Amino acid sequence: MKLWLNGEIADAGDTRIDPADRGLLLGDGLFETMLVRRGTPVFFEEHLLRLMKGAEMTGMLMPYAPDAIRDACRDLLKANGLGDAPRASLRLTLTRGTGPRGLALPPEPRPTVLIGVAPAGSPPERLSLAIVSPRRNPWSPSARLKALTYLDNVVAKEEAREKGADDALMLDTGGMVACASAANIFLWEGNRLITPADRGAILPGITRAALLELAPGIGIEMREEDIAPERLSRASGLFLTNSLMGLVPVSRLDGAEVSAHPMTARLAAAYELLLDAAAAGY
Amino acid sequence: MKLWLNGEIADAGDTRIDPADRGLLLGDGLFETMLVRRGTPVFFEEHLLRLMKGAEMTGMLMPYAPDAIRDACRDLLKANGLGDAPRASLRLTLTRGTGPRGLALPPEPRPTVLIGVAPAGSPPERLSLAIVSPRRNPWSPSARLKALTYLDNVVAKEEAREKGADDALMLDTGGMVACASAANIFLWEGNRLITPADRGAILPGITRAALLELAPGIGIEMREEDIAPERLSRASGLFLTNSLMGLVPVSRLDGAEVSAHPMTARLAAAYELLLDAAAAGY
Repeated sequence: MKLWLNGEIADAGDTRIDPADRGLLLGDGLFETMLVRRGTPVFFEEHLLRLMKGAEMTGMLMPYAPDAIRDACRDLLKANGLGDAPRASLRLTLTRGTGPRGLALPPEPRPTVLIGVAPAGSPPERLSLAIVSPRRNPWSPSARLKALTYLDNVVAKEEAREKGADDALMLDTGGMVACASAANIFLWEGNRLITPADRGAILPGITRAALLELAPGIGIEMREEDIAPERLSRASGLFLTNSLMGLVPVSRLDGAEVSAHPMTARLAAAYELLLDAAAAGY
Repeated sequence: MKLWLNGEIADAGDTRIDPADRGLLLGDGLFETMLVRRGTPVFFEEHLLRLMKGAEMTGMLMPYAPDAIRDACRDLLKANGLGDAPRASLRLTLTRGTGPRGLALPPEPRPTVLIGVAPAGSPPERLSLAIVSPRRNPWSPSARLKALTYLDNVVAKEEAREKGADDALMLDTGGMVACASAANIFLWEGNRLITPADRGAILPGITRAALLELAPGIGIEMREEDIAPERLSRASGLFLTNSLMGLVPVSRLDGAEVSAHPMTARLAAAYELLLDAAAAGY
């Protein structure tokens, strides 16, 4: 595969990250993962906006304009023969770059921008979840940002796999439902759709935001609430969302079967139409 | 400067981190920062032990035995002309290395081990603190590990600097005193020394552990307790500790002067003797 690094496309094997990059040394960076359909990154503007907001919140500099990043994505997809692939994934990473030792911001920031792409298979048809011990912190800037600080999520996912589940269900430090290791969660109570309110402990997902707009438009009552974990076991259906997977029903929670809710497929179909529209407007 | 990467010493400019390294992409790694005195990393075994424990907790592989790392440190210090420097710093970084996309652990782990050294000046004579908004999470594996996930601390330190202070005082999610951006905190109440109890929200510092043993031995009553922030303003003295700085008195907290406690200097002197002894036993 070829990568795009600070304006240059080269083979991954010839692409060098500086060992003094703060992205590596301190997790001092942000990223976005996008679904690409036939060469078009879906919700590109929403992803860029979230990255820009994160950069502003953390005092990071994004040295390329959105249009330059858009061109870079297109060029890189083509260079990897993915310009027409039905599904691919794209990851855009921004780090604060190199700097002197320590945590203080470098006086002359030279950020690193890295783009990678990969073919993407079909998303899983369903996923099982297990509640894990690592919890999300509403007082953490990196919890509400798509930051390079995913170690807790890596540990959470591994704990879930050891429990025989596909993915982790993480609570927040207050014990309320937060999210999966890399996905937002939704539950059905009858025909009402509920997702954890954004109080800083969850990443405000692009797909989550799209559903919050989409659901009421097709007659589904939609709420953001604080959700105690007990409520999940009584729910009439659960699903996860992220940019790469779209909507994926949850099959089991802590070993107990979760009923499939017929509205999930209906909402997923509406979301697919929205993706088509978003791709057409790219 | 020269770096040591996976067994090879080379100029930093010729040292390449793979852009697929999970340390960069996911903060999926650990590190140790050591003080080096005349070529000898202080508390080397304690640092290695902490790294090994962290590797075990996160399912990471450390591919080199402690003795090989010790040799690598010595070789690298010499290669950088720091074999006899009175003070230097050394950073040992372990990442999970490269792997397929996603959070799941790579089936064939190829960890990255990176060592860097730098000359170290004298530690600051005192530091001012400001209480900041990011808080430490006792439910986070990476809060109790020296993990590559320092973005919250970077943001915390910057917030403190914007408030005119040198460093951040971070609380935990329960509102109790936790630590500075990269140091543990101690307070004097009269001649009794108190430090926040380790309930998962603080990094269990090597210097902190050394003082917990040392203080009672020289007649100082020492306790680990939950500390409400109000208690800091009433304290008769505050100081910070980390491996590079040793003990550094706090001069101000949120703008208010903190009295200098005469026992801090006495304890610091005893700690220096302990460093000499530790270095002699290397």
